[in-house]
Amino acid sequence: MICRALIASLALAGCSPALADHDVATSPPAVPSADLPPLFAAEVEHARAFVDGMMAQGVVVPVPTDPGGGYTHEQHKRNYKAIYLGGQLYRVTGEQAYADYVRDILLAYAKLYPTLGDHPAKANQNPGRLFWQVLNDAVWLVHAVQGYGDIRDTLRGADRQLIDDQVFRRAAQFLSVDSRATFDRIHNHATWAAAGVGMTGYLLGDEDLVERALMGSDKSGKTGFLRQTELLFSPDGYYTEGPYYQRYALMPFMVFADAIAKNDPKRRIFQRRDGILLKALNTTIQLTYGGYFFPFNDALRDKSLNTDELYHGVAIAYAETGDPGLLDIARSQGRTILTDDGLKLSRDLAAGKAKPFPFRSLLLSDGPEGGQGAVAILRHGQGASQMALVAKNTSQGMGHGHFDKLSWQFYDKGHEIVSDYGAARFLNIVAKEGGRYLPENESWAKQTVAHNALVINGESHFGGDQKLADLHAPQQLYFDASADLQISTATIDSAYPEHGVTMTRTLALLDVAGLDAPVVIDVLNASGDSSLTYDLPLHYSGQIMETGFPISRYLTERPVLGDANGYQHIWVDGTATPTADNAFMTWILGGRFYTYRFVPQNDLKVILGESGANDPNFNLRREPMIIQRKTDGRDVSFVSLLEPHGLYDGAAEQTVGSRSQIASLRHETHDGYDIVIVETKSGAKTALALSYDSDPAKTHNAKIDGHDVRWTGFAARIALNGESN
Amino acid sequence: MICRALIASLALAGCSPALADHDVATSPPAVPSADLPPLFAAEVEHARAFVDGMMAQGVVVPVPTDPGGGYTHEQHKRNYKAIYLGGQLYRVTGEQAYADYVRDILLAYAKLYPTLGDHPAKANQNPGRLFWQVLNDAVWLVHAVQGYGDIRDTLRGADRQLIDDQVFRRAAQFLSVDSRATFDRIHNHATWAAAGVGMTGYLLGDEDLVERALMGSDKSGKTGFLRQTELLFSPDGYYTEGPYYQRYALMPFMVFADAIAKNDPKRRIFQRRDGILLKALNTTIQLTYGGYFFPFNDALRDKSLNTDELYHGVAIAYAETGDPGLLDIARSQGRTILTDDGLKLSRDLAAGKAKPFPFRSLLLSDGPEGGQGAVAILRHGQGASQMALVAKNTSQGMGHGHFDKLSWQFYDKGHEIVSDYGAARFLNIVAKEGGRYLPENESWAKQTVAHNALVINGESHFGGDQKLADLHAPQQLYFDASADLQISTATIDSAYPEHGVTMTRTLALLDVAGLDAPVVIDVLNASGDSSLTYDLPLHYSGQIMETGFPISRYLTERPVLGDANGYQHIWVDGTATPTADNAFMTWILGGRFYTYRFVPQNDLKVILGESGANDPNFNLRREPMIIQRKTDGRDVSFVSLLEPHGLYDGAAEQTVGSRSQIASLRHETHDGYDIVIVETKSGAKTALALSYDSDPAKTHNAKIDGHDVRWTGFAARIALNGESN
Ligand SMILES: [Zn+2]
Ligand SMILES: [Zn+2]
Repeated sequence: MICRALIASLALAGCSPALADHDVATSPPAVPSADLPPLFAAEVEHARAFVDGMMAQGVVVPVPTDPGGGYTHEQHKRNYKAIYLGGQLYRVTGEQAYADYVRDILLAYAKLYPTLGDHPAKANQNPGRLFWQVLNDAVWLVHAVQGYGDIRDTLRGADRQLIDDQVFRRAAQFLSVDSRATFDRIHNHATWAAAGVGMTGYLLGDEDLVERALMGSDKSGKTGFLRQTELLFSPDGYYTEGPYYQRYALMPFMVFADAIAKNDPKRRIFQRRDGILLKALNTTIQLTYGGYFFPFNDALRDKSLNTDELYHGVAIAYAETGDPGLLDIARSQGRTILTDDGLKLSRDLAAGKAKPFPFRSLLLSDGPEGGQGAVAILRHGQGASQMALVAKNTSQGMGHGHFDKLSWQFYDKGHEIVSDYGAARFLNIVAKEGGRYLPENESWAKQTVAHNALVINGESHFGGDQKLADLHAPQQLYFDASADLQISTATIDSAYPEHGVTMTRTLALLDVAGLDAPVVIDVLNASGDSSLTYDLPLHYSGQIMETGFPISRYLTERPVLGDANGYQHIWVDGTATPTADNAFMTWILGGRFYTYRFVPQNDLKVILGESGANDPNFNLRREPMIIQRKTDGRDVSFVSLLEPHGLYDGAAEQTVGSRSQIASLRHETHDGYDIVIVETKSGAKTALALSYDSDPAKTHNAKIDGHDVRWTGFAARIALNGESN
Repeated sequence: MICRALIASLALAGCSPALADHDVATSPPAVPSADLPPLFAAEVEHARAFVDGMMAQGVVVPVPTDPGGGYTHEQHKRNYKAIYLGGQLYRVTGEQAYADYVRDILLAYAKLYPTLGDHPAKANQNPGRLFWQVLNDAVWLVHAVQGYGDIRDTLRGADRQLIDDQVFRRAAQFLSVDSRATFDRIHNHATWAAAGVGMTGYLLGDEDLVERALMGSDKSGKTGFLRQTELLFSPDGYYTEGPYYQRYALMPFMVFADAIAKNDPKRRIFQRRDGILLKALNTTIQLTYGGYFFPFNDALRDKSLNTDELYHGVAIAYAETGDPGLLDIARSQGRTILTDDGLKLSRDLAAGKAKPFPFRSLLLSDGPEGGQGAVAILRHGQGASQMALVAKNTSQGMGHGHFDKLSWQFYDKGHEIVSDYGAARFLNIVAKEGGRYLPENESWAKQTVAHNALVINGESHFGGDQKLADLHAPQQLYFDASADLQISTATIDSAYPEHGVTMTRTLALLDVAGLDAPVVIDVLNASGDSSLTYDLPLHYSGQIMETGFPISRYLTERPVLGDANGYQHIWVDGTATPTADNAFMTWILGGRFYTYRFVPQNDLKVILGESGANDPNFNLRREPMIIQRKTDGRDVSFVSLLEPHGLYDGAAEQTVGSRSQIASLRHETHDGYDIVIVETKSGAKTALALSYDSDPAKTHNAKIDGHDVRWTGFAARIALNGESN
C-alpha cells in the first residue's frame, strides 16, 4: 500500500489499512514555508490571497435562487473554492484559522442543505440543489470533499457528525440516487458525479458509496467510473468531443483516480486499460501547439494548457510517472496544486529535473475501440518554431462536433497558418448572448465551408444533421511518420449519402530536395454518383503578397457567396481561373511567407473571400479564405501544396526568400496511383507516390517524366533526379 | 583631453595631442574573452558569425552595376559591414586574420575606386559611385572608415598610403566636393556625408576634411554638421519627419559626435545647444510604446528599439551620461556595439546598474525653434501595462508627412487601441512594388480620413498638398501632466484655408471618480465660414462587443464610402443615428474592453467601416473605424470619451466588467468655456472644465447641474459630488 503522508490530502483513509472513520483530532504536519519550493510557495500565496479575501467577507451561504452567472450561483462557486483551498492551506501552513473557516462554512451548509429541494431556476431534466443544474452540484462536491478531508480530523465529534450527515451524505445521496439518470450515464457529467460520490465514500469510510461510484448505482459495472474510463476515451486516450472538451473532461477522471490510487491502491487504477488515464493526460498535452489546444469542434481558441484542469492533471500524472516532460509543462504553466503531488512536482522542478516535453508525430484513434477515425498529428522540428500538421479524421464528436470531415490545420513558427475557426462564442461576455454559443456557431462555425474540408453542392456534411453524423466516421487508411515523408490518409463514404460520394484525402509533410523546410502536400480525391459541384476552401491567416493568377476583383461593392450552410457569411473579394503555371498565391504571417499552390483541374475556378457577411451583431471574426471550385464534376482530384519559405524581419529591415522556390506542381494518375511531382526553381524534382495499397511489402511502379520509378507500400517519397540537387 | 583607450575605435588620432598621422604598427590591446561581459561577448559572436562567413567567400568587390536591392548593391553593403565589424573584431580579439581581411578588401577597393564615375543605375540628381545614390556611398564611408581605423596602424606604409589615397581621400572628395549639392543641404543625407568625411579627416589627420564636415564645404558654418544639429532637431530633440525617420537620422549624428568628442573634446559636442544630441537620443526612446515607435507619418509599424541605429545611440549616449535607464533599454535590446562605449555599457549592465527607463508624460516641440507644433505624450502607470495617449500636433514633416493634423493614438496594456495606419509599404518584399512605398500610401495612408483627425467636405488637410502643408503648423495651446488630469490642447486655422476653418482639439486623460483607470476625453471644436460636412473618424483595434445604438447594416452587399481622398478605400458596414443615451460602442482587445462614447450633435450620423475597398493588389490591412459625421454644420463640437474597462481571460474563463461603468457623457458650453460631465453608473460625477485661458492665475466659474463651480487656469478636473463616490 502506498501512503504519501507529507500532505495527505484525501489520503486520510488511505493511510490506514481499512476504510475506517477517524475519531481523533491530530495536528497537521505543517511544512515550514522556507522549505517550500518556489512554484508551490507561489501557489500558497495565490490561495492565501483568495481565501483571506473570502474570510474577510465572513461565511456567506445564501439560499439558492439564481441561474448560472447569478449571485447565488457565483457565491456557491466561491464557497467550494474556499473550502477546497482553505483545507489545503490548513494542511500546508497549520494555521488554525483556515480550518475554522472551512468548518464554519460547512456548518452553514449543514443547516442549509436539508432544507433544499430542486433548484428554483432549474432549466432541464437534471436540476441541482445548490445550482440550477446537477453538474454544478457534482463539481461542488468534488472540491468540497477534498477541503473537508483536510480538516475533518480536527473537528469535535458533534461538528463532524453534523457535516458528515447533513452535507456530504446528503449530497452523495442526491447525486447517486435522486439524480440517477445523470449518474448512470456514460458521459462526462456522470464522471463528475462519480468522483464526488466516490471521494465522499473514501472520506466517510462508506464502501457503499465507493462501490456505486466505481460500478454505477446498481453496482453492476455497466455504468460508473470504471466503465467510463473504458468508453469515454479511445485506446489512445482521445476524447471524442475534441481537445477543448477533453481538457474539461479530464479533471474528474484524474482527481478521482488519484483518490482511488491513494485509498485503494490494489485497484491499480492508473494501470487499467493499458494506463488509459495517464495516456489521456499525455494525449491532452499532445493536442496543443504553442500551449494552445487545436481549436476544432466547439472550442474557444484562447484556451491553453494554463488552466486549472491541467494543473491538476499534470501534478497527479507526474506523481504517478515521474515523467520529466511533465515538469517542463508545469514550468510553462507556472502553476500547480496544493497537494502532495503538487509539492513533489514543485520540488523536482526546483531540483532541475525537467526535460522538454516530447511533442511528436502521432496517430490518435477515436472511438472506444479506436475504430471511429483518428486525429493525425505530423510534427517537424523542435520547440517554439516547430511545424505541425493536424489532420482531423475523427468522428463527429456529438453535439459540440463540427461538420468538418477530413479537415486539417497547419502551424509553423508559432503561428496557426491554416486555421480552424473554433466556436463562435464569447465566454461570459454578457453582451454576446449572455456568453453562450452564438447563432453564428450554428450558421458558420459548424458548417463545412467554414473548414478546410470538401463541400459538395454547397451543403454541409451529413446535411448538417448531427444525429446522422454521429453514426458514421472516417476510416484512417494509413499513417507514417518517417523523417522525409510524414503522411496520413483517410477516407469517408458517408458524408454525402444522397450523392454516393466517397472522399479520400492524403495530407503529408514532404521533404523537397533543395528546400529548407518540408512542404505540405494535400491530395483529395472524390467521386459521386452524378455531376456535382465541389468546393475546397482553405482558411489561412496572413496578408496576400501576390497571386500568380489575375483576379477579377470586387473593388467597389462586395457580394455574398451564397445564402445557406455558411455561404451566407462569406464576402467575395474576387474570382479567378488559374492555369497550371500560375496557380499559386503567397501570403505573409509572422515574418514568414507561405505559398499555396494547386493543380488546376479543368474548369477550375478560384474564389477569394472573407468571413463576416450577414453578421448583424459583429459576432464573427473576419478571416480570409481561398476556395477551389470544380463544377460539373463526378470524379475530381484536388492536389495542393503549401510551402513555407523565406523570412521578413521588419526590425532588422531584412527580407529573404519572399518568393516561392517551386517552379511547378504536377499530378499524374497511373492505374489508381496518384503521383505528385514537385519541381524547384533549381530543377530538383521530388515526387510523392501513392499506391493506396496497405501491404507494406508490395512493390509498385509507374513511369514519371520518362523514368521508371518503383516503390513499396502505401506511399513513398521519390527523388527524381537525385538528392544532390 | 579624454582618451578612452581600452578599445580605441576611432580614437587613434584622439589619443595623441594633435591631428597627426601614425606611422608605427602597434599590437592591439586585445581583451581576454573571458573578461568580456555577456552582452559584449555575445556581440563578438554575432560579428564573428558574419565576418567569418564573408571571409569564407573571399574578397568580392564587384564593379558597381545594380540599383538598390541588386547584387552589386547588396555586396557593397555586405563589404562595408565586413570592414566595420572585421576591424572591431581585430581590436577586440587581436586575431590577425581579421586585420588582413579588412586590408585585403580595402586594397581591392583601392584598385576599383579610381576607375569609377557616376553609377550606371543612377536614378536622380545625386548619383553615387559604389551605389546608385550618394546616400549609400556616405553610409559606406561611415562604416568603412571605422573599420579601417581599427587596423590602419598595423599596415605597411605602402598599403596604408594606397588605401588612404585611393579609397578614403577619394571617397571624401567625392562626397564633399563632387556631391556638394547633397553635402551642403540641411538634411539627414548630408549628415551621413558629413559624418563620413569628418571621420575620414580625423583618421587621416586631415583638418581640412574635418572643417568641411563640421562647417560645410565653404567652411562658413551655414551648412555642415554643426548647423545640422541646430536645424534638424527641435529644442526638445524631436526630428520633424517623425519617430520612424528620427531613429534613422540619429545614427550619423551620434556616431560622428562620438568621434568628435574623442578627437576634439574641446568642442564639447555633446554639450552643444543644451545637449541636443543626447536629448534627441532620449526623445527617440520616449517616442515608443512597448519598444515600438509611434507609427505616425511614413512609418513601418514593426520598427522597434531593436535596431542598429539604437544599439549605437544607446551605447554612445550611455558612455557620455552614465544614465542607468539606458542600461534598461540595452537589456531589452539584447544587443550593443563592439566599441569601448559598448564595452562600458555591457560591463555596467552586467554589474546590475540598470534602472527602469523613465517613460513619462512630456511635450516635444517641433521645428528648429520649437514653434512648429508639438507631440504631446500622456502616460499613466508603469511598465508593460502603461497607458499612453499621443497627440500629434506637429508640423507636416516634409515628404514623408501625413495629412493628420491634431490626430491621436492611444495605447493600453501593451496594445495599440486607437491606431495610426503607418505607411503602406512592405519593405524589401519584391512582389509589393519592389519593396517601395505602395500606391495606397498616397491614396490611403497619407489621407486625413485614414487618421483620427477631422475631415472637412471629404477633403484632406491642405488639399493633400505637401508644399502647402509644410508652410503651416498647429499651435500647442496648453499642456499639463498632473496626476488626475493630463491634458493637451492645440489649434490650427490653416488646414482648410478655402473654408476658413479653425480646429481646436483637447485630448486628456481624466481620472473619473469610481473608475479604476483614467478615461480619454476628446473635445474637438471646429468652425468654418460656411456650411460644411465634418467627419471625425476613430480607427480602433478590436472586435465589437456591443453598440448602444441600432445600426442599419449592409449585410449582403457592402458599398464604398466615397471616391477620393481615401474614402474610396472604406467599406461601409452600416450607419446609425445615435441618441444621447445610446451613443456608445464597446470593443474588446487583448483581454480588455474599450467603450467609445460621444455626445451626439444635432443630425449626427455614424458610419461603421473598414479599410480595404478599391485595393486591387491586397496591399491594405483591413481595419475597422467609426466615423462621426455632422453635415450642414458651421460651428461644431465633437465631444468623445474612451473608457478602458474590465478583463477577459479566456484561459481562466474569467470575465469581469465587460460593460461600461459610465451612465452618461454630457457637454455644456458657457461663455466660451467647454464643460464635459461624466457620470458613472454609481452616480459619481466628474467634470473637465476648459477655459482656454492660458493665464494660470485667472479664475473661472460656470453653473453645472445647478451648482456653481469655479476653477483657475486653462483646464481643470472637478469632482461634482465629492471624491467619495
Ligand atoms: Zn470547426
Ligand atoms: Zn499616418
